[in-house]
Amino acid sequence: MNESSKDAAVDSAPESEAPAPPAAGLSRRGLLGLAFGGGVASLAVGVGAGLSGGVALGRARAEADARRAYDFFGAHQAGITTPVQEHLHFASYDMMPRTDREDLITLLQDWTYAASRMTQGLEVSATGAVGGDAEVPPDDTGEALGLPASGLTITFGFGPSLFENEEGDRYGIASLRPGPLERLPAFLGDGLDPQASHGDLCIQACADDPQVAVHAIRNLSRIAFGRAKLRWSQLGFGKTSRTTSAQATPRNLFGFKDGTANILADDAAALDEHVWTGASDRPEWMAGGSYLVARKIAMRIETWDRVRLSEQNTIVGRDKSEGAPLSGGDEFSAPDFSAAAIDPNAHVRLAHPEQNDGIRILRRGFNYVDGNNALGRLDAGLFFLSYQRDPAQFIALQRRLSTDRMNEYITHVGSGVWAVPGGSRPGSFVGAGLFD
Amino acid sequence: MNESSKDAAVDSAPESEAPAPPAAGLSRRGLLGLAFGGGVASLAVGVGAGLSGGVALGRARAEADARRAYDFFGAHQAGITTPVQEHLHFASYDMMPRTDREDLITLLQDWTYAASRMTQGLEVSATGAVGGDAEVPPDDTGEALGLPASGLTITFGFGPSLFENEEGDRYGIASLRPGPLERLPAFLGDGLDPQASHGDLCIQACADDPQVAVHAIRNLSRIAFGRAKLRWSQLGFGKTSRTTSAQATPRNLFGFKDGTANILADDAAALDEHVWTGASDRPEWMAGGSYLVARKIAMRIETWDRVRLSEQNTIVGRDKSEGAPLSGGDEFSAPDFSAAAIDPNAHVRLAHPEQNDGIRILRRGFNYVDGNNALGRLDAGLFFLSYQRDPAQFIALQRRLSTDRMNEYITHVGSGVWAVPGGSRPGSFVGAGLFD
Repeated sequence: MNESSKDAAVDSAPESEAPAPPAAGLSRRGLLGLAFGGGVASLAVGVGAGLSGGVALGRARAEADARRAYDFFGAHQAGITTPVQEHLHFASYDMMPRTDREDLITLLQDWTYAASRMTQGLEVSATGAVGGDAEVPPDDTGEALGLPASGLTITFGFGPSLFENEEGDRYGIASLRPGPLERLPAFLGDGLDPQASHGDLCIQACADDPQVAVHAIRNLSRIAFGRAKLRWSQLGFGKTSRTTSAQATPRNLFGFKDGTANILADDAAALDEHVWTGASDRPEWMAGGSYLVARKIAMRIETWDRVRLSEQNTIVGRDKSEGAPLSGGDEFSAPDFSAAAIDPNAHVRLAHPEQNDGIRILRRGFNYVDGNNALGRLDAGLFFLSYQRDPAQFIALQRRLSTDRMNEYITHVGSGVWAVPGGSRPGSFVGAGLFD
Repeated sequence: MNESSKDAAVDSAPESEAPAPPAAGLSRRGLLGLAFGGGVASLAVGVGAGLSGGVALGRARAEADARRAYDFFGAHQAGITTPVQEHLHFASYDMMPRTDREDLITLLQDWTYAASRMTQGLEVSATGAVGGDAEVPPDDTGEALGLPASGLTITFGFGPSLFENEEGDRYGIASLRPGPLERLPAFLGDGLDPQASHGDLCIQACADDPQVAVHAIRNLSRIAFGRAKLRWSQLGFGKTSRTTSAQATPRNLFGFKDGTANILADDAAALDEHVWTGASDRPEWMAGGSYLVARKIAMRIETWDRVRLSEQNTIVGRDKSEGAPLSGGDEFSAPDFSAAAIDPNAHVRLAHPEQNDGIRILRRGFNYVDGNNALGRLDAGLFFLSYQRDPAQFIALQRRLSTDRMNEYITHVGSGVWAVPGGSRPGSFVGAGLFD
């Protein structure tokens, strides 16, 4: 796949440029993408804002929803403040033994090229699944042929071990490792599975169609062949956080609303304070970036389901029905922590910014169900994802949760932290600043 | 949960009856369900057929899609010819040791009651997740509060071991076991995992929202507490079959269209001939029923992805781009098996009714991705589900596929067969005929 590396510098299809005419043999999916990519995002917003004036726009709405395409390029990577999609495929990768700096650079270029296309509803290359030489394996695996962009975002992160591991400074970037980027400390009650933890690189693929998210991870894994190898991966659904005020607060598998007090995409001040690494943060290549923490949190579903409602409310510190704090009000009322109704070790008390020197994080988690164990218990829980300006924010909150009454019903079984560089420019590639 | 058993006979909410006024404390979800359940299915059809005359209906369409509710009661169980939904949660159960006939009957009554409610967007009981006594565990687990019915169907099946196992005739129904209901024979190349095979009972939950399907299986598992235990379960997405001509043919994870020649819901003659057990079929309690075969088919994704396009086409016998048979025409053209273009062991040749004495089955499979293995290969494939009048239809086809060129890229890792009784009447319960 290395031939495509050089294209990353030229074939970037920013929204403002007219796309090149379709190459001979470009698939139906490719044509759809060229016809509808990019521009429909604004159409969808217009309709959502109540501008629709007739049945044609009414009809267009559902189609625009599915065809919504987010630009891969920009000041920040997409998939952080983007309205949370319905589905997640998250993947962690390790670089292959004996790979060098050039391998890492070309991998990031190839990934950028493919991601910039797939997020527009295009195949990974112009020839794609069916348009190339029939006597070689197709460039694209084909299961997303005919499917629209479906709001796909692809977000890349660099783990601490990418910068330096037991083999040393493999890629000549050890000196550029951000100080805060270190494997998370052990927390009380952790039961981490190495097969769901850590990794040199990560990719978060979110979309409103699971087949589109799976197609993205599968093809990016394939593109990595010989350079990086899938270490672990996780599917999720039913977003458990919201990132815009237009989204209703979804419920997690404990049946409670989750994410009521999340940082929202339109709160620029909070994003700058809590999520984006700023110009003053070091190293420079992380400007406009963030740090991603992933925690796979297994829930003891069947035990929880035998807890009486009043106790469930007490544990969470909110009322299950509406999500209102037990001190009164509605879902969006500020909890009154002087009220005895909120238990000293209720989840809402321990996790709330007011009880944590104002620390906030942007949560972007998903529910997961991985079948069941031999005892017939569901292997299910929350795949927690959070973005913050410094992993120290997560660490402080997680330490504070050590006495959380909810801990009786959960175990953290997976963990990882990655530096998420800022967005890339058309013509460049994700993380390019690391190699300047 | 046994108190609700008796209600199954009275609280059935058929479409033609006005629903009872909401009980005190009925949740928002319950209210939505009562206001919009049942009736919206016909609204959605009307709009889909082009009757919309203004923006109100245009807007109503997307909402009606999500609120679409299928009746649990009817001549046949829903979830067989129902337009295939986007998501699957399939579960297999074993009865608990020392359960008796009464336990099985009350379990089926309780399941019927809950299924008839959940398919209308209601909680499992009138008190639900938040409306009951706060000093007991809630009836409903709550994660679907606020979500519409989402086209949920719940389909029940009885495995051979329910009728008789090593412990004997536990429920006094051994003499009523249908002759064709026997564990499937071993097939060449099978690599079955007992943790993904067989089971006394099965439930297929399909919905357009995975959270709704997962909620259904979780709550039905909970209702079964002490009587039946989850044996294995499987999530799936991206339906790989279509059951109406309005649905586009989706693609499986080999990137090919799958289900082009499926039996469609409007082909009553083919359904009577190939899918529904008829009045002449024995035993009598299976009238209007069918037999369900599940096969978890693992795909060697990475190996397949290295096969050249021409060879992929040859293996399938169709062209990857459009799904046309290699003998020519378009997706819906009949393959010409006299043409040399279709390999003697191409999948389409071996599986086609014309090559199998006219044998047909109704397929209803889903793609699955269960993460990846330690080598970094995706644990992914097709969760094949088929309905047929007699499991012998599947057995004949599967034996014919023993020389399928596709076998190099797949392994059947899970298997099961269940008798799916006909639909139940309001006031009765699924499988009641077994206990007359």
